[in-house]
Amino acid sequence: MIDDKNIFKTPISEYGEFGIIKHLTKNFEIRSPFTVKGIGDDASVSDPKNKKVLLSSDILIENVHFNLAYTPLKHLGYKVVIAGISDIIAMNASPQQILISIGVSNRFPVEALDEIYKGIHIACKHYNIDLIGGDTVSSNSGLVLNVTAVGFADENEIVYRKGAQPNDLLIVSGDLGGAYFGLQVLERENVAYKSNPNLQPDLSEYSYILERQLKPEARTDIKNLLKDMDIHPTSMIDISDGLASEILHLSDQSNVGFSLYEEKIPIDNQVITTAEEFGINPITGILNGGEDYELLFTLPITETDKIKHNPNFSIIGHATQEIKNVLITKGNTQIIPLTAQGWEAYLNKKHTIK
Amino acid sequence: MIDDKNIFKTPISEYGEFGIIKHLTKNFEIRSPFTVKGIGDDASVSDPKNKKVLLSSDILIENVHFNLAYTPLKHLGYKVVIAGISDIIAMNASPQQILISIGVSNRFPVEALDEIYKGIHIACKHYNIDLIGGDTVSSNSGLVLNVTAVGFADENEIVYRKGAQPNDLLIVSGDLGGAYFGLQVLERENVAYKSNPNLQPDLSEYSYILERQLKPEARTDIKNLLKDMDIHPTSMIDISDGLASEILHLSDQSNVGFSLYEEKIPIDNQVITTAEEFGINPITGILNGGEDYELLFTLPITETDKIKHNPNFSIIGHATQEIKNVLITKGNTQIIPLTAQGWEAYLNKKHTIK
Repeated sequence: MIDDKNIFKTPISEYGEFGIIKHLTKNFEIRSPFTVKGIGDDASVSDPKNKKVLLSSDILIENVHFNLAYTPLKHLGYKVVIAGISDIIAMNASPQQILISIGVSNRFPVEALDEIYKGIHIACKHYNIDLIGGDTVSSNSGLVLNVTAVGFADENEIVYRKGAQPNDLLIVSGDLGGAYFGLQVLERENVAYKSNPNLQPDLSEYSYILERQLKPEARTDIKNLLKDMDIHPTSMIDISDGLASEILHLSDQSNVGFSLYEEKIPIDNQVITTAEEFGINPITGILNGGEDYELLFTLPITETDKIKHNPNFSIIGHATQEIKNVLITKGNTQIIPLTAQGWEAYLNKKHTIK
Repeated sequence: MIDDKNIFKTPISEYGEFGIIKHLTKNFEIRSPFTVKGIGDDASVSDPKNKKVLLSSDILIENVHFNLAYTPLKHLGYKVVIAGISDIIAMNASPQQILISIGVSNRFPVEALDEIYKGIHIACKHYNIDLIGGDTVSSNSGLVLNVTAVGFADENEIVYRKGAQPNDLLIVSGDLGGAYFGLQVLERENVAYKSNPNLQPDLSEYSYILERQLKPEARTDIKNLLKDMDIHPTSMIDISDGLASEILHLSDQSNVGFSLYEEKIPIDNQVITTAEEFGINPITGILNGGEDYELLFTLPITETDKIKHNPNFSIIGHATQEIKNVLITKGNTQIIPLTAQGWEAYLNKKHTIK
């Protein structure tokens, strides 16, 4: 589980300022029809082809957003692409390009940078995304990655966070909590490894939630799924910071409240058994943990029949007229008001602000 | 000179996750006609109005690219905008928007973030740029800023690094070396301050070069200047990493060599006197130091009459057929081949890779 990062050690200085960026990006082909000029000039050039341009930036910092003790560098490269394009998908747009800036200390050999770029390359290939720019600089502290994702959409396709109306259905794709509980397992194993490096733990029973944490996927399929169902969400957001925070964003921007049905939240069995093992309520993990990269959206209640039996989606609540008031309904009676994690909690956890 | 950052101390936690970003961006109006939706959703939305889209990312890291001991936070915010838009200007495009990601430790109070955003705001206002996105996260090491700049241009306006032809004139705007020698003065004063904090140095004789380092400007005026002169460069780049590195980029991308006339390089008197004071050859500082944010471009020799008497520009050399061979002509006889700084030097200095 723990990579040995000491096997190959070519110092970055061997390539020189010109060489290293050419070396790292030599396998990146241009795939997107929107890309006119990718890496290699002062700026990239894109042809928007009469569409609107969507842009989003995320920054990931070592020991805040990832721990290299249990995050393979290739997976980190893959995940930074996912984190970027998920924001574009959440606008119902098509992600096409990314720019990635990396701050790296000279304790990293070229082979470590190669691994990060391999992960970026695999993600670009899988999602037909072009790496069109970025920056590689030295950092005298930890590893830092910034991703700017670029998407394109026709104006009438774009879905904002505002737009939810009272009585709209609240819907989520996939299932939630996997990434959070996968992280709990990795952190526990990391502690165990530190006290006994010869441990070879069998983690196969956690395979799904570990994959959700280490190699998440972005829901590029949802846009077409919704189109085929003739569904246009009234509001949408991606679940990167935990369900609580995302519902509060929709509530805030749409000026509605929400009623969330706890028992309707889709949870994989591995999440339930792992939550039990850790003595954590799975709902707490889902509300406050992040990185599931699923989509949360609202639909007029008149669309119920189109979506209620679709296995890709779960109706988990509805919008209300009580502005900015979000309540969790537990069973038939219990109602708990939902609050976002404060900044204090955030500062000590892997959480980003939109 | 050294800010007392301990006067006000509102912990970031007082604002909470929602509040802080609203607080920091509350004074940012939308100015660009290209901006449809700025901050506040999963992604920004821009209307390219039939133009091409240009994108560029730069990352700035504490104690690599800036030192908070002598860089006021407001100036840092201003400078990160300049670093971003300078790359767009270097494509002969019009910078319109930026996204800024900040990683900040909890040793920073809200008032420190306020100062950074004040600088960003002043730059946005001065250059008519919209802040349309970004990310604010915790960093357990130093301060990190990433800027993604967005520009728009008609296809026939765009100038790439490729395109220089043998015999083309090599031209630079403004004068060079100010930012580098301003940095030398600041670093010397910082050392003096550490040994005697009661020192109140008179830095007025360095005012121009200190401003070039601490509050550089971006040459947004050049595009119109060239248009008015009916001049379209064959290749162009901005001087952010030192003249040597930039000439080598043009040489590499255009498949030409260059002959650089040392005595034609425009140098301000303060640069000359300060270089003398530090015992550094001013040309060495100009070739290897960065951050002047001037433009370097090439023109067909037939355009000589249009530009030779313009005080905004200096003809400093010409392109040759000797591919990728850059020579410095000193007086009439001495010729020195030019090499870029290696990565090793780069790792120990404030230098970024394009």
